[in-house]
Amino acid sequence: MFTVNANYQKLPGSYLFSTVAKKVAAYQKENPDADIIRLGIGDVTQPIAPAIISALHKAVDEMGNAETFHGYAPDLGYEFLREAIRKNDYEARGCDIAADEIFISDGAKSDSGNIQELFSEDNIVAVTDPVYPVYVDSNVMGGRLGTFDPKSEKWSELIYMPSVAENNFVPDFPEKTPDIIYLCIPNNPTGTSMTKDEVQGWVDYANRNGCVIIYDAAYEAYITEDNVPHSIYECDGARECAIEIRSFSKKAGFTGLRLGFTVVPKDLKQGGVSLRDMWARRHGTKFNGAPYIVQRAGEAVYSPEGSAQVSAQVASYMKNAHAIKDGLSDLGYNAYGGVNSPYIWLKTPNGMSSWDFFDFLLEKANIVGTPGSGFGPSGEGYFRLTAFGTYENSIRALERIKNL
Amino acid sequence: MFTVNANYQKLPGSYLFSTVAKKVAAYQKENPDADIIRLGIGDVTQPIAPAIISALHKAVDEMGNAETFHGYAPDLGYEFLREAIRKNDYEARGCDIAADEIFISDGAKSDSGNIQELFSEDNIVAVTDPVYPVYVDSNVMGGRLGTFDPKSEKWSELIYMPSVAENNFVPDFPEKTPDIIYLCIPNNPTGTSMTKDEVQGWVDYANRNGCVIIYDAAYEAYITEDNVPHSIYECDGARECAIEIRSFSKKAGFTGLRLGFTVVPKDLKQGGVSLRDMWARRHGTKFNGAPYIVQRAGEAVYSPEGSAQVSAQVASYMKNAHAIKDGLSDLGYNAYGGVNSPYIWLKTPNGMSSWDFFDFLLEKANIVGTPGSGFGPSGEGYFRLTAFGTYENSIRALERIKNL
Repeated sequence: MFTVNANYQKLPGSYLFSTVAKKVAAYQKENPDADIIRLGIGDVTQPIAPAIISALHKAVDEMGNAETFHGYAPDLGYEFLREAIRKNDYEARGCDIAADEIFISDGAKSDSGNIQELFSEDNIVAVTDPVYPVYVDSNVMGGRLGTFDPKSEKWSELIYMPSVAENNFVPDFPEKTPDIIYLCIPNNPTGTSMTKDEVQGWVDYANRNGCVIIYDAAYEAYITEDNVPHSIYECDGARECAIEIRSFSKKAGFTGLRLGFTVVPKDLKQGGVSLRDMWARRHGTKFNGAPYIVQRAGEAVYSPEGSAQVSAQVASYMKNAHAIKDGLSDLGYNAYGGVNSPYIWLKTPNGMSSWDFFDFLLEKANIVGTPGSGFGPSGEGYFRLTAFGTYENSIRALERIKNL
Repeated sequence: MFTVNANYQKLPGSYLFSTVAKKVAAYQKENPDADIIRLGIGDVTQPIAPAIISALHKAVDEMGNAETFHGYAPDLGYEFLREAIRKNDYEARGCDIAADEIFISDGAKSDSGNIQELFSEDNIVAVTDPVYPVYVDSNVMGGRLGTFDPKSEKWSELIYMPSVAENNFVPDFPEKTPDIIYLCIPNNPTGTSMTKDEVQGWVDYANRNGCVIIYDAAYEAYITEDNVPHSIYECDGARECAIEIRSFSKKAGFTGLRLGFTVVPKDLKQGGVSLRDMWARRHGTKFNGAPYIVQRAGEAVYSPEGSAQVSAQVASYMKNAHAIKDGLSDLGYNAYGGVNSPYIWLKTPNGMSSWDFFDFLLEKANIVGTPGSGFGPSGEGYFRLTAFGTYENSIRALERIKNL
């Protein structure tokens, strides 16, 4: 008789954003006229840039012609895209990354969820707290996190590294040494970042202690400060200890197009085993590439026109971020992030719980945000707003909050 | 110190099609003028049909406009596509499948590789032999198959169910009862199929013994005989024991567009746990949907024009299949499949090994096929040719084989 993976049953409730979506859908159903402003899930709102649309149309036409049709993609992804990434995202920043260390995927969420498969079940995982839920949930499914205590809302085997206002959102090295460390910089959900020196400290820590760092740089396009690294490979020794995950979702509005990539350097080995070769084997066995037309769209992100257009989009989201953050601060809220990131992380007023504030904002101001506690226990009492709406809606949301 | 998933190291050599691709690339490099006919990997060659190209262009335009832009897709996939599938692939064949039991994905390979995650590590797996390598390799990575014996080329914990000429490619029920049974019908690689009564026998066996069937129907569009089921849900009791995986790759030439789906009925439960809910949780946690434009392309496959166009493509591939099979039979080869499938499975001549015949065909006739032994020990002495080339190349390949 077959039996199911018991680890799945350990997961409490459903995936954070699914819960938010259900709550909003229920509210909208009961209040069909409510004009809801969505600053919740972190989905972009601006259309795909013209240079990328042109590239998509061109690639679609190629697919309709026998001479230019493309079937199965190469295992790692098309050379034209991996080479554009190597050159623009790495060589241009002084990072020594080869095109065959870059694996094109259907997005950073898939890669973030799947990467834990490379490690044995008894590895100890550490996450900053709060954190993007996929790191935790995928490791629960992989059997690494022990059991969930509903009271503390903590996993018995997971190392939590609180990132809160009190430590300026830069976690201390944990007391117990982990094997796998997830770092998301600029951070989702807090919108805060680390300096290059601080990231270097983590790379040194990892190399000193035999840890691997899963570095999620999905938001690197939003970095505005010079001393924040765009890639962990800007740090010495990162090729020996770090895997980097990147996304086109936030950089170029690809949330509905699905494209990302993961870098696994050849120098990352354990017991003589190359993690790059393991990831290549996983790609070859359980994945069949991102669509050709989407890989061409990704290439267009690096063209002179595409690059200028997506930079303008990022700048306009950052204009929203500044407006929201400054507006909230003016209203007396403690607001963080928003400088190198499209996320604003605020302290809920009057000690409200995160979910109470979610319901309050939804019902009283018709604004959807994301409850901080959904990202981990240290997120309790915080709330995330995104800058991915329109400028007009960002200002309207502020007005509504002002009138609460 | 982190440690790696030791199961990966158990995998011998690399993924079959990667090995084939490397051998062909090496040969082409040494013989740059060789006019190689590729009947190996099973990739389609005809361009995407006009009705689907139009749908893609329209969807691309939507993505370039703020009013019609689509970001993150719904967790299960867009309703328009799931509803088209429900109606055309299931209701039209008398199968009771709801739209919320259908999960849109980036292809059958991903789903075939990921589905094993739902089951505990100690489940016993059975596969027909030969078999699509993804079922086996993904279960090796999941730790279910024990150790590999290079001599027998068998996994210690895997149940092999030989499907060979001697049993007309319909395997017997295994001596030891498995927990998970993979069936691919019409079969890859043998190109053979089972009748509805035979599939019903497997459904009854599964329900009697508490097994789950992973039913891969990626080639259902190629079925020409009335008594071969297009879906396992045509059989009584399948909702209680079967998961079905489908692909647009072979049906509509989507190998480079990436679209598939998996059906997990709500009646499939174990110990009160719904496998449909588990798969929904996996989708929500480790996947972010197929691209909107590709889901629109999938919808167009079911439009009157799209449907007629993809049917014509399938028919033309089947014309190749018949030509190759009949031609080989005329030349004295024992050839199978090719009736409900684009694959022809032939006995190698003079007792040659599968890889020897691969090298022989590549070097003497510049034809690429796939060695049967790459699909499992019972594939030794067989060889797979695909009908996905052009008709002209299929005939040219036959001529070359005739002149060997």
